[in-house]
Amino acid sequence: MRILTLLTDFGNKDPYVGIMKAVVLSMVDTHIVDITHEIPHGDIRRAAFFLKYYPFYFPEGTVHLIVVDPTVGSERRGIVSLYKGHYFVAPDNGVLTPVLGEVYRIDREPASHTFHGRDVFSPVAGELLLGEPLEKIGERIYDPVRIEFPVPVVNQDNITGEVIIIDRFGNLITNIPSDNIGEGDFVEYRGYEIPIVMSYSDVEPGKPLALVNSYGLLEIGINQGSAEAFFKGKIGDRIKIRRYHG
Amino acid sequence: MRILTLLTDFGNKDPYVGIMKAVVLSMVDTHIVDITHEIPHGDIRRAAFFLKYYPFYFPEGTVHLIVVDPTVGSERRGIVSLYKGHYFVAPDNGVLTPVLGEVYRIDREPASHTFHGRDVFSPVAGELLLGEPLEKIGERIYDPVRIEFPVPVVNQDNITGEVIIIDRFGNLITNIPSDNIGEGDFVEYRGYEIPIVMSYSDVEPGKPLALVNSYGLLEIGINQGSAEAFFKGKIGDRIKIRRYHG
Amino acid sequence: MRILTLLTDFGNKDPYVGIMKAVVLSMVDTHIVDITHEIPHGDIRRAAFFLKYYPFYFPEGTVHLIVVDPTVGSERRGIVSLYKGHYFVAPDNGVLTPVLGEVYRIDREPASHTFHGRDVFSPVAGELLLGEPLEKIGERIYDPVRIEFPVPVVNQDNITGEVIIIDRFGNLITNIPSDNIGEGDFVEYRGYEIPIVMSYSDVEPGKPLALVNSYGLLEIGINQGSAEAFFKGKIGDRIKIRRYHG
Repeated sequence: MRILTLLTDFGNKDPYVGIMKAVVLSMVDTHIVDITHEIPHGDIRRAAFFLKYYPFYFPEGTVHLIVVDPTVGSERRGIVSLYKGHYFVAPDNGVLTPVLGEVYRIDREPASHTFHGRDVFSPVAGELLLGEPLEKIGERIYDPVRIEFPVPVVNQDNITGEVIIIDRFGNLITNIPSDNIGEGDFVEYRGYEIPIVMSYSDVEPGKPLALVNSYGLLEIGINQGSAEAFFKGKIGDRIKIRRYHG
Repeated sequence: MRILTLLTDFGNKDPYVGIMKAVVLSMVDTHIVDITHEIPHGDIRRAAFFLKYYPFYFPEGTVHLIVVDPTVGSERRGIVSLYKGHYFVAPDNGVLTPVLGEVYRIDREPASHTFHGRDVFSPVAGELLLGEPLEKIGERIYDPVRIEFPVPVVNQDNITGEVIIIDRFGNLITNIPSDNIGEGDFVEYRGYEIPIVMSYSDVEPGKPLALVNSYGLLEIGINQGSAEAFFKGKIGDRIKIRRYHG
Repeated sequence: MRILTLLTDFGNKDPYVGIMKAVVLSMVDTHIVDITHEIPHGDIRRAAFFLKYYPFYFPEGTVHLIVVDPTVGSERRGIVSLYKGHYFVAPDNGVLTPVLGEVYRIDREPASHTFHGRDVFSPVAGELLLGEPLEKIGERIYDPVRIEFPVPVVNQDNITGEVIIIDRFGNLITNIPSDNIGEGDFVEYRGYEIPIVMSYSDVEPGKPLALVNSYGLLEIGINQGSAEAFFKGKIGDRIKIRRYHG
C-alpha cells in the first residue's frame, strides 16, 4: 500500500489534521504516517531542515504532505515536487528547498482562504496516491521559492558553525557535517572545551560531549541530560571546532 | 476499509488510547484516525463543538468514538447515535448534541468503574465496524442528554457573539456564522476596531484581523501571530460586530 | 494484518518516530499503534510499568517495540523477548522486566551510535513481522537485565505502598493491588482520611477518593479534578491503608 506522510504546524489540540486525513481517506486507501505536527507556527526553516532527512527512509512513490503556511490566503502558489522518486506537496514558500526537483504549480481554486491543507493540498495528495500524472496537477514551473541555510565557515585552524535545531532531548544540532571533523579536534562553546566522542555513553552522566549524530551532523549533548538546559543553548548560537594538526 | 475516529481527553502520556485501539483491532481490521486526545479533562463543550465539523469529511459508515466522560462510573448511560450515515459512540452526557439522530442505549455491564472507553465503548465500536445492527446494541431511546450552545444576539446595528474555541495558533473562534456578516462591517473587541478581511495575509504581520474561518465562523486572529496572546483572549469573551448601513 | 506497537521517549516534535516507522513500512505492511512517545527521557521504570498492562489487549503475535535507551552507544545489548505469545524488542536495560520470557540477544552492527531505534530495533521488528524465526535474531541468553519494583508492606493493621505513576488526569496510581483491600478500609495520605469507593462519581466534585483503577491498583483521585494538584502529589509518596477489623 502506498504511504502518505504529514508534516505540519497544526499541533494536536484541534481537528485540523484529522480533517486532512478524512479528505485523503475519502479518496484512497493509504497508510498515513504523522512525522510531526509540532513545527512551531510558521517555522518554514525547521520543516525544511527535517525534509533533508526523513523522506528517504520511506519507499519510493511515497507522497509527503507539508503544510507550514504562514501566508495562506495570499498569492503564494501551491506546488508539487518530484524528487528522487518521492512526491512533495506544499505551499511554495521555500519549505521544499531541500527536495526541489521537477516542480508543478497546483492549479485549483480553494474553498477557503484559511485552510488550504484541507481544500488544496490533501486533495492533490489523494490524486497522486491514486496515480494521477503530474501534468494533471498544473503547469511545470522553474522558479520555485528557495530559502538559504547558514553554512559553516571552514578555516585551517577552526570551523565555525551554528546551532540550527534543538531536539526533544535538548541536544543542540549544528550545521557542521561529519566530513569536516578530524581525530583530535574539539569543540569550543560557551567557554567549555568539549570532547568529540562516539556516543553519549563515552562521558560520565551529566557531562557535556559532542558527537556526529544520526543526521550526520555535529551535535552537542549532555550524557543523560539536556544541553539546552545546561548551556541555555539557543538556535543561532555559534559553535567553534578547534582543528588538531598532529 | 472502514474507518474509526477517536476523540478523547486521555492525552498522549498514558497507554489508555493504545489500549482502546488494541480492543478494536483485536476484533476487526480498520483504519484508525486520531482526531485529538487533548480535549481538556471533562470539557464536553469543546468536544461537542468539534463534532459539528470533523465527522462529515469522512466517508459514510465511519464510526466515531468519543470518550470525554467526567461522570464515568455513575448512572449515566452509554449511547450510539446514527446521524447522516455516521455512527457515534459516546457517554450520554450531552457530548453528542450536534449529532443526535437515531439513538440507542448501550446495554452492557462494564468490567471497570473507571475506564468505559476500554470496557464498553471500544467493543461497541468494534461491533459496529463489523456490521452488527444497531438493534443488537440496546434499546432505542428518545431522551438523550442535550447541552445548550450560546447563540449570538443579532440587532439592527450590531451582533454580539462570544469566543467559543481558541485553537493552537491562538485564533479566537466565535459563535458568529458567516451569513450574519456583511460588507463594510467591522469588529469591536477589547477597544480595537478590527477589519473583517478575506485572509490573514490581508493585514501586515503582527496586526489584528477578523475573517470567516474554515468552520464558516467569525474568527479573530493576528497575521503570523497569536490573538490569544495579543488580546489576552479567553473563552466567553464578548465580541461585537458593528453593522454597516451603506 | 499483524500489529506493531511503539513505546518511546522520543516525543512528538522530531521526526525520529516517523523514521522508525519508515524503516518498518519499507519492509512490511503492518498496522502501527503508538502507545506513547512521552515517556520522560530515559525513564525505564515508567516504560516498564506500562508494559505490565497494554501489550495483552493486543492479539497474540503482536510485535512491541520499546525504545527508552539512556545508554545507547554503550556496550548494552539489544534483545528480543517472546512472552505469552507477544514479541518485545528493546535495549537490554531492564525495561522489559515484566515481559521477560524466552530472550534472544540481537546480533548486528548498528550504523549509528545514537539512534539504534532506526538502525537496530526497527529492522528487527520488521523481520519479526515478516515471520523470521527468533533463532535468526541472535543467540539465546539467560541473563537479561532486570529492575526491581517497590512492593507494598502488608501488616495486620495497615498496608504501606507508594505512588508509582501519575497519569494525565493527575490521578496518583499506587503499587497496592486490589486483593489487599477490604471493605471498610480507608486511606491515609497527607493528613487526609480518604474513603475507598467504586468510582469517581461516588464523591462530590472536588473531593478526594481512592478506588481500584483499571490497572487493578489503588489510585487516589479527585472527582472531576487533579489529585496531583490538590495534594501536590509526587512519585514515591507513601500511602497508608488503614485496615478495618469489623
